[in-house]
Amino acid sequence: MTARLEIVAVPGVPEVAKGSSPGALIAAAADRAGTAITDADVVVVSQKIVSKAEGRVRNLGEVEPGPDALVMAARIDKDPRLVELILAESRRIVRAERRVLVVETHGGWICANAGIDASNVPGDETVALLPEDADESARQLRGDLGAASGSRPGVIIADSFGRPWRLGQTDVAIGCAGIRPIDDWRGRTDREGRPLGATAVAVADELAAAADLVRDKSSGVPAVLIRGAGRWVDAGDGPGAAALRRAEAEDLFR
Amino acid sequence: MTARLEIVAVPGVPEVAKGSSPGALIAAAADRAGTAITDADVVVVSQKIVSKAEGRVRNLGEVEPGPDALVMAARIDKDPRLVELILAESRRIVRAERRVLVVETHGGWICANAGIDASNVPGDETVALLPEDADESARQLRGDLGAASGSRPGVIIADSFGRPWRLGQTDVAIGCAGIRPIDDWRGRTDREGRPLGATAVAVADELAAAADLVRDKSSGVPAVLIRGAGRWVDAGDGPGAAALRRAEAEDLFR
Repeated sequence: MTARLEIVAVPGVPEVAKGSSPGALIAAAADRAGTAITDADVVVVSQKIVSKAEGRVRNLGEVEPGPDALVMAARIDKDPRLVELILAESRRIVRAERRVLVVETHGGWICANAGIDASNVPGDETVALLPEDADESARQLRGDLGAASGSRPGVIIADSFGRPWRLGQTDVAIGCAGIRPIDDWRGRTDREGRPLGATAVAVADELAAAADLVRDKSSGVPAVLIRGAGRWVDAGDGPGAAALRRAEAEDLFR
Repeated sequence: MTARLEIVAVPGVPEVAKGSSPGALIAAAADRAGTAITDADVVVVSQKIVSKAEGRVRNLGEVEPGPDALVMAARIDKDPRLVELILAESRRIVRAERRVLVVETHGGWICANAGIDASNVPGDETVALLPEDADESARQLRGDLGAASGSRPGVIIADSFGRPWRLGQTDVAIGCAGIRPIDDWRGRTDREGRPLGATAVAVADELAAAADLVRDKSSGVPAVLIRGAGRWVDAGDGPGAAALRRAEAEDLFR
């Protein structure tokens, strides 16, 4: 078992432009910092850097809200241009109240504002959307990291989501590659030899949350290395964070 | 800022009996393992060890289900004795369907089965309830740890909760002492100098999740040490995990 983990910010990853490779930039920054990345590590990357590289950035000044967005924006007292972007990214509205718009994105994530936000995005009215397919982004990033560094760590793309019932946000995995996202103990036994009933650990989310602890929100540290997590890293890219999405039929809260 | 965290399981904490002090046992185990605990550390303790020490353990064979429990158990196809215990621990039923009973506990946590479960509890039909007031438990544990070790780390009592929309469980804080549970960046600015809108990080939950990664579910490691988390540790006990509970008026999902 893993009895020790180390979580280290990767310093010196530069601002990312559309078309650049976050994997190559992270590998180079880790190299400059003397931080060797191995196949047994996990690299947790902020959604923001991936969205910027993929051009998933919009200027609110260029958004023309349609009639649905105008009605919704008036109803919940929110910027109609932002509402337009949120609706375009969503396949379902889960809650719309008091300036809060919780949706299910086309990618299947349920979160506030379709994950759109403005912090750490250059430009006065610029916002970043989520990557279109963050599992695919994670696979590409893993490939680029491997090509640049010679090693194939697990890769998680993380974003901060709020939660029902609890205050504050925690980072969760919205994409991953080479990670077993859920460690399922069902069928195994506890130390009394009794079956572990409902125990399936959302490892990818816990790794994302752990990485967030070394990330200073004002400095925008976009990459974090987790050492000692090799038990969850696979050579193959695996099912991705899609495996963390609860099917609608098994969900009681949408 | 914290640029590095280390997460280490504390080995050799013995099985806990009613009336024993988890704080003293953890301090002794850390001492035997040569793991010095400092005021800048956080000790994350599993709910199970605290519940056992507080005698919050029940034998299903001794539970007599009342009429409400019998009706509910038949409706959702669940053991009526377990349903009796869940209802006694709850002030509200949030969802009751398909063997799933999500409730709000008297302590204010919304979770499945009022947090009652059987894994890693000795005895064939024995289950553990949540501590009655896990913030008070955390304060006591911190005091006992301090008396035994001479240091006052932050203390978190963690349990595994499921989530709406996402599969798998993550550990969250149900009690804490000496920890700032939420790191609120609102009012501060990002590196572009723009206000960080909705960024309040549920640090206590992220620390609990991080600690869970070094905990083997079958071996029942009840205590984990996090080094490098001193920025969130205070000399005073602080507001506890109560600060993580979203007020009903601000919650859209109950």
